[in-house]
Amino acid sequence: MKKLLIASTALVMVAGAAAAEVKLSGNARMGVVYNGDDAYFSSRARVVFTLSGTTDSGLEFGATFRADEAGDTAANNGAAFGNEGTVFISGAFGKIEMGDTVSAPEALFGDLYEVGYTDLAMGGLSNDIPYLTGDGNGAGGTSAGNPSVLYTYSAGAFSVAASMTDGVNATPAGDPSNAVTADDATQYAVAGAYTFGNYTVGLGYEVIDPVVGADVDQVELAGTAKFGATNVKAYYASISALVDAKAYGVSVDTTFGATTVGGYVQTIDSDFNPADVTWYGLGASYDLGGGASIVGGIADNDLPNSDMVADFGVKFKF
Amino acid sequence: MKKLLIASTALVMVAGAAAAEVKLSGNARMGVVYNGDDAYFSSRARVVFTLSGTTDSGLEFGATFRADEAGDTAANNGAAFGNEGTVFISGAFGKIEMGDTVSAPEALFGDLYEVGYTDLAMGGLSNDIPYLTGDGNGAGGTSAGNPSVLYTYSAGAFSVAASMTDGVNATPAGDPSNAVTADDATQYAVAGAYTFGNYTVGLGYEVIDPVVGADVDQVELAGTAKFGATNVKAYYASISALVDAKAYGVSVDTTFGATTVGGYVQTIDSDFNPADVTWYGLGASYDLGGGASIVGGIADNDLPNSDMVADFGVKFKF
Amino acid sequence: MKKLLIASTALVMVAGAAAAEVKLSGNARMGVVYNGDDAYFSSRARVVFTLSGTTDSGLEFGATFRADEAGDTAANNGAAFGNEGTVFISGAFGKIEMGDTVSAPEALFGDLYEVGYTDLAMGGLSNDIPYLTGDGNGAGGTSAGNPSVLYTYSAGAFSVAASMTDGVNATPAGDPSNAVTADDATQYAVAGAYTFGNYTVGLGYEVIDPVVGADVDQVELAGTAKFGATNVKAYYASISALVDAKAYGVSVDTTFGATTVGGYVQTIDSDFNPADVTWYGLGASYDLGGGASIVGGIADNDLPNSDMVADFGVKFKF
Repeated sequence: MKKLLIASTALVMVAGAAAAEVKLSGNARMGVVYNGDDAYFSSRARVVFTLSGTTDSGLEFGATFRADEAGDTAANNGAAFGNEGTVFISGAFGKIEMGDTVSAPEALFGDLYEVGYTDLAMGGLSNDIPYLTGDGNGAGGTSAGNPSVLYTYSAGAFSVAASMTDGVNATPAGDPSNAVTADDATQYAVAGAYTFGNYTVGLGYEVIDPVVGADVDQVELAGTAKFGATNVKAYYASISALVDAKAYGVSVDTTFGATTVGGYVQTIDSDFNPADVTWYGLGASYDLGGGASIVGGIADNDLPNSDMVADFGVKFKF
Repeated sequence: MKKLLIASTALVMVAGAAAAEVKLSGNARMGVVYNGDDAYFSSRARVVFTLSGTTDSGLEFGATFRADEAGDTAANNGAAFGNEGTVFISGAFGKIEMGDTVSAPEALFGDLYEVGYTDLAMGGLSNDIPYLTGDGNGAGGTSAGNPSVLYTYSAGAFSVAASMTDGVNATPAGDPSNAVTADDATQYAVAGAYTFGNYTVGLGYEVIDPVVGADVDQVELAGTAKFGATNVKAYYASISALVDAKAYGVSVDTTFGATTVGGYVQTIDSDFNPADVTWYGLGASYDLGGGASIVGGIADNDLPNSDMVADFGVKFKF
Repeated sequence: MKKLLIASTALVMVAGAAAAEVKLSGNARMGVVYNGDDAYFSSRARVVFTLSGTTDSGLEFGATFRADEAGDTAANNGAAFGNEGTVFISGAFGKIEMGDTVSAPEALFGDLYEVGYTDLAMGGLSNDIPYLTGDGNGAGGTSAGNPSVLYTYSAGAFSVAASMTDGVNATPAGDPSNAVTADDATQYAVAGAYTFGNYTVGLGYEVIDPVVGADVDQVELAGTAKFGATNVKAYYASISALVDAKAYGVSVDTTFGATTVGGYVQTIDSDFNPADVTWYGLGASYDLGGGASIVGGIADNDLPNSDMVADFGVKFKF
C-alpha cells in the first residue's frame, strides 16, 4: 500500500491549493457589429493572469490583470505601474484592494444586464450604471501613479464598501519615491447593501473633490430581485453638481433551458433639459456549453441623429 | 482499492483534455546577424497563448496570440482589439477564423523554406511568397477594428479556403458599436488545393478593391512534392495592376539525420523593368534535440547597391 | 497493482521535468509612499515568463521576461525585439546570455540590501551599486536591436564573468537582416570573484568606448561576508572620465525569526566637488509566510533641497 500513498500525496501537490501561484484564464469573441452606419467584423481575444496565495495565518492575497493590461515599461502604464488590474489582501477584517478598482457602490451593485456580444455602447451609453467615481470614471479617475483603494466587508446579510483615491498624482509611476507629485481630484465613496432571501437593497454615496471648485456628489439607491430564473435590477441616482440631474434604470433577464433573454432601459433627467436622454438595450444568448455561447443584441437612444446599433456573434470563455 | 480509484479520477482531471483552457508555449533565438554593412548580436524571446474549448455538440473553438501582441489598452492595439492574433470556431462545416488572418492562398500553400535563424529578410524580400492580401499585406491590410475573416475546409484530397475584409475601417476598435466608420479597401481571396500521394497542387485568386481607383488582382499556382526526406515547393503568381507583373519561385529542403539544408530562389518580372529582382536564400540547421537547434543562412538579391546578408545562431522552442 | 503503476507513470508526466516548457510566476505590492512632499498609494502587479529546455546532450537553454516587457509589435520594443528579458544557453562551458543583461561585475556582486516595499530610489540614488555598463546603464545602454551579451562561469571557489555590447545600433530590431545600422558606444566588462567559507571577494572592470571622444572606465572591488543570519556587502569603485570620481558603500542585514532589518550607505566622492553625495536607506520586513511580507523603509541623502522619503506596504511573491 506504500506506493498508493505516494500517489495520493503527489496528487495533492498537483492540485496545489496552498502554494502561491499564477493561473491563466481568458475569453474571446467574434461576430458582426452594426454601428448605425455600417456593418463590419469585430473580434478580440484576451488572457487574464490571476495571482493568489495564503499567509501562514490564513490571510489571502493576490492580484489580477489582463495580458493586454500588463503594461509597457516604455510607456509607464499597465498593472506593472498600478493603473490597470488590482492587488488585494483579505481576511476576517474584509478585503483591501488597490489599483484600478471600481467604486464602493459598483463593487456592491454592479451594472445592469449586458446585451450583445460586444456590450453595444453608444456614445458612452451602455448597460453601465453611471457611477461617479472609480473604474476610470470621473474627473479623478485612476491614472498612472494614482491607484484607487477599495475596501469591502460582508457579515451575514450585510455588505459594506468604501473606496477612495488619495488626491495626489505621482509621475512617473514606476519609481514611486522618485516621483514628482501634484494635487489631483480626490474621490470618496461608501456603500451598503442588505440581502433578505432573493432580494437585495443598497445605498451608495460618492464624492469628487476637485483641485479647484466645488465638490460633486451622487447618491445611488439600488435593488435586485430574483424570481426563479429571472433577475431584476433597478437603480436611482441623483447627482449634485453645477447642474443637478437624476438617472434611473432597470434591467430584466430570464433563462429558459440554454437560452437567456434580457434588456435594460435607462434615463438621465437633467435640470439642463437638452442633456436628457433615454436609452435601452435588448439581447439574447444561447449557451453552446463548454464556455461558448451565441449572443446578439440591439440598443438605441432617443437622441436626434442617432441610429439603432446591433451585433451578433459568438463569445468564448476559457 | 478505493484510494486507488480516487487517484485515477484525479489524474484524469489533471490531464484536463475536455475543459476550456489557456496553454503557454514559446520560442527564443540568439546569435549574430550580418546585414551587409555590420555584424551584430540579435536576440528575442516570445510567449504564445493558446485558448481552446469544445461545445457540448463537439464544435471546437479557441483563440491564439503572442504575449507581445496581447495589446495595449492605451494604444487600442493587439489581440484585445482584433488586430493581432485570431479567434476561431470549427466543426464539420470547416473552420472560421477572425482577426489578423492570412489570406486564403497562404492558408493552403504557406511560404517557401525559411533560411537563417532570423529569416533573413532584405528590404521586404524573404522566403515569403508575395501574396496580395491578408497577414497585414497590401493596401487593405488588417488594422485595428478591421479584422479579416478566413474560412477553410478539407474533404478527403480537396482543401478550399476563402478570406475577406469588410471594407470598413472602424475606430477606435475597443468599443465596436461606438466606433466611427469609414470606407476602406476590401480584400477577397479564394484558393483550392488537391493532394495525391506526396504531391499537392493548388490555385489561388486574390483581389483588392480600393476605395478609389481600379481593382488589383493576382492569380497564384502552387505545388509541393515530397520525395523521402526532401521537400520541394514552387509557385507562379501573376498580378494585374497599373503595371502588370509576375513572380515565381521554388524552394528545396532535405533532412539527413539531425541536419537539414535548404534554400529558395524567387523572381519578380515586371512590365516596368527596373522593378525586376531575383533573390535567394540558403540555410542549414542542426537539431540539438529538446527543442533547440543551431541555424545559419545567407541571402542575397541582384539589386544594385545591395550586399549579401547572413546570420548564425540558436533557435529554441518551448 | 496495475492501476497503481499507471497512476505513478502519469504523475511523472505531470511533474514534467524534462520537456521544454513555459512557467509562470509573479509578484505584487501595495502600500503608501512618501516622496518628501506627499504621501500617496502605490501598487503594482507583475507576471514573469520562464522558458526552459534541455538538449539531448544535456545543454540547458531558456529565456525569461516579464509580461509587461513582452513587447509591443507597434513600438518594436520588449523581449520580442531583444531589448528586454534575456535568452541563454548553458553547459560545462558556462552560461551565455543575450538581451537586456546586467554587466559582468553586477552578475557576480549584485547590489546592496534593498529597503522599503518599493526600493526607495531618490533621483536615481538607491541600493543599486553604480555599475558603469549593462542593465540599461550608461551611454551604451542596450537599445532595441542592441542586446548585450553576458558570459558567466564557475569552477569551485572561482567565478568569472565577461559582458559586452557590439557597438552597432540596428533599427528596426524586428527584422535584423533588414535593419539600418549605425555606430553606437561599445561596452566591455570583466569580473572575477573568489569564495572562501562565508567570504567572497571580487574585482570588476568596465569600459565604455563612445563613438566620439575618450573611453570611460571603472574598477570595482567588492566583498561579502555572512555571519550566522547577518550579511554584509561592501564595494569601492573608481571611475576615470573627464572628471574622475570614486564611490563606495556598505550594506548590512540581519534576520531574527520572521523579521529582517537592514540598511545601506553609499558615497560618491568626485573631483568635481558639487557632485559629491552621500545617501542611505534603512528598512525592515516581516515574513507572513506563503510569499507575503510586510515591508517598510526610509531613505535620505545630503543634497540640499532634498527630503527623506519613506514607504510602508505589503509585498507578495507568487
